[in-house]
Amino acid sequence: MERREGEETVVAENGSTQENPKDGSICGFDSLHRLLQASLSPQLFQEVSRMLLGLNCGKEVEPITLQRPIKALSSKHNFDLQAFSFSADRESLRGPRIVRVGLIQNSVALPTTAPFLNQREGIFQKLIPMIDAAGSSGVNILCLQEAWTMPFAFCTREKKWCEFAEQIDGESTSFLQQFAQKYNMVIISPILERDLNHGETLWNTAVIIGNHGNIIGKHRKNHIPRVGDFNESTYYMEGNTSHPVFETAYGKIAVNICYGRHHPLNWLAFGLNGAEIVFNPSATVGELSEPMWPIEARNAAIANSYFVGSINRVGTEVFPHPFTSGDGKPQHSNFGHFYGSSHFSAPDASCTPSLSRCKDGLLISDMDLNLCRQLKDKWGFRMTARYEVYSDLLARYMKQDFEPQVISDPLLHKSAQVLP
Amino acid sequence: MERREGEETVVAENGSTQENPKDGSICGFDSLHRLLQASLSPQLFQEVSRMLLGLNCGKEVEPITLQRPIKALSSKHNFDLQAFSFSADRESLRGPRIVRVGLIQNSVALPTTAPFLNQREGIFQKLIPMIDAAGSSGVNILCLQEAWTMPFAFCTREKKWCEFAEQIDGESTSFLQQFAQKYNMVIISPILERDLNHGETLWNTAVIIGNHGNIIGKHRKNHIPRVGDFNESTYYMEGNTSHPVFETAYGKIAVNICYGRHHPLNWLAFGLNGAEIVFNPSATVGELSEPMWPIEARNAAIANSYFVGSINRVGTEVFPHPFTSGDGKPQHSNFGHFYGSSHFSAPDASCTPSLSRCKDGLLISDMDLNLCRQLKDKWGFRMTARYEVYSDLLARYMKQDFEPQVISDPLLHKSAQVLP
Repeated sequence: MERREGEETVVAENGSTQENPKDGSICGFDSLHRLLQASLSPQLFQEVSRMLLGLNCGKEVEPITLQRPIKALSSKHNFDLQAFSFSADRESLRGPRIVRVGLIQNSVALPTTAPFLNQREGIFQKLIPMIDAAGSSGVNILCLQEAWTMPFAFCTREKKWCEFAEQIDGESTSFLQQFAQKYNMVIISPILERDLNHGETLWNTAVIIGNHGNIIGKHRKNHIPRVGDFNESTYYMEGNTSHPVFETAYGKIAVNICYGRHHPLNWLAFGLNGAEIVFNPSATVGELSEPMWPIEARNAAIANSYFVGSINRVGTEVFPHPFTSGDGKPQHSNFGHFYGSSHFSAPDASCTPSLSRCKDGLLISDMDLNLCRQLKDKWGFRMTARYEVYSDLLARYMKQDFEPQVISDPLLHKSAQVLP
Repeated sequence: MERREGEETVVAENGSTQENPKDGSICGFDSLHRLLQASLSPQLFQEVSRMLLGLNCGKEVEPITLQRPIKALSSKHNFDLQAFSFSADRESLRGPRIVRVGLIQNSVALPTTAPFLNQREGIFQKLIPMIDAAGSSGVNILCLQEAWTMPFAFCTREKKWCEFAEQIDGESTSFLQQFAQKYNMVIISPILERDLNHGETLWNTAVIIGNHGNIIGKHRKNHIPRVGDFNESTYYMEGNTSHPVFETAYGKIAVNICYGRHHPLNWLAFGLNGAEIVFNPSATVGELSEPMWPIEARNAAIANSYFVGSINRVGTEVFPHPFTSGDGKPQHSNFGHFYGSSHFSAPDASCTPSLSRCKDGLLISDMDLNLCRQLKDKWGFRMTARYEVYSDLLARYMKQDFEPQVISDPLLHKSAQVLP
């Protein structure tokens, strides 16, 4: 088994990527944005990227220039570094509430056959320059990817990987608390949690570390997939923390972990509880979900009038023992390509370009949280939502004798029916 | 005031459009898909369009070749004509349930200063070749655009335009019933409804005409906008028909009218009632909503495991009396550009290219309704949705004393707060 290193993928000038010489895996092109930038005339690229990034009405997503030492970190440690700023109107009765937010995506550091302690320590070490880059850039809130301390081993159905589970105040939290304190930065740390007080129950959990290094609280993943190789329901159950919004020094934030992004009700609940930024730390592979990736987060940002930060891990993880995928294909030990592509979406339907599909990255964005209320006032989605209708519908739907509201064509029997 | 005719816009070879010589309005490029097709190498275009159309895992959206007389109708009457086919797996215990579905987008036929009777008759006449093209192509279900019998005059706040309102069995329904019968075709007809039995109440309503020309039922728009020039709340109120699904000869269909597409709960409700295709007849303009247009319908199709057919009218409508828009800009009589771009979205996250942004059009797509269940079985969104959690949340949210679930950082007072 070869070592997998997303960061060693070669990115060509035209935005396409070459084969990884170590294991022959192909990441494909680096990012749609860069691919189009390299291929279209500047004028046409501007028009197309405005369409794709949802820019309109004079709104811009402006690149931010970071200081040279931070760029140097990115070059030295070979991670993608991009920074943007969303625009918002100035208000008369409130000052702007601009926060700088960061997302980190990364591949694992060592082969999955290495001792677990080394694997975790390897990830800690490779994250340090990226966290330093975020902190030195003045990032106020930083979010890491789902289960960032370990390979995404749930595909294997092997219980050995549960050893990576930690308590809320475990090693990874301690590791991050020093950076939170040093940089006065809120850090969201999604880990596999071991709940000692409830019989060693495992959860998929985001720990919210405050900007003084304190633990503010936790959120446990609400919706667990049973699709493809995402055998997470083998390991842990649906979360029991409901939809908490964390009031931090830099605004009200929430965490919609991975598969929860497919559930509009989950996004809605964080919105009803007042979230201004919702993070979606994920681990998902190209074959399965890439067509959905640019859609769901942006829709959530629009529908709920908040910002969304989407993170996907990157690279291909190969496991010691082959497994089957319930698709009739032969056993294999490769989970498929985690396609990165982390990005931010805004409530005005705009979004940033995405990080690389192939390498580690830090994405930074400035956002004025006032934009959330501005969009609520403009579009009025909360006020026109008629929640009472849906409260009633869901209450009826939960009953065994629920009958859908169907109006049948009385002439159905006369028809040349397509229905069987 | 000049006559507005989207169909006279000149579409250049490179997909861009020229100025309309009649009123100087600029539609912009014809469609993103065509713009990229004309600008990228064939190989690169294929890669990019696969990303943008959400094609993956061997799924394709294949063009369908229509018969020459149908293409001739499109050339003669200068409407965009495109046809595609979504793919689905063959099942062992059910035959395929392939239906052919059509969407029509159009500009108005006459200036808004013409006698109302002529305006409506003009639209009837210009639609005939498009409906004939749909019927002759074997379309099973055809949907027209929102309030298709009239200009979208609600921006004016003038009550004179209410004259266009009709009863469910009015002139426009009679007009369409003949085509439904002739072509054995279900037709969805979104009109401004006048409800004589309830004191002349006005509604924004879709009439469902069965394939024998019978009226199956109606649905009234659930959510009414109060944004920009969309002054529809001046004219009619939120619908009282809830979320009916119509069981037709060709499958279970529902209608989410216009602004309802911004409400994930509205989409959800049609899904819970069993819809397999949800139509979204709309009237919306570029400045306001174009960045959201490619996102919301596709998200609904993914989240609810059904097909979506999105329709937007096309062209710029100019009204006799100028009006202001609550944006501090001077009065004007032009509603802005309705950008067409009608398209289909599938539950597997794929979608068709969109119709023109500038001219009338008929979009046809074949879809195997079995794909809906296939995606439900694959992704399990219905089963992992935890509706009981949200039923409870919405019930609590409706109460005056609802308190959001917020966990505040106990060290918040220590922080250099961004919050005011």
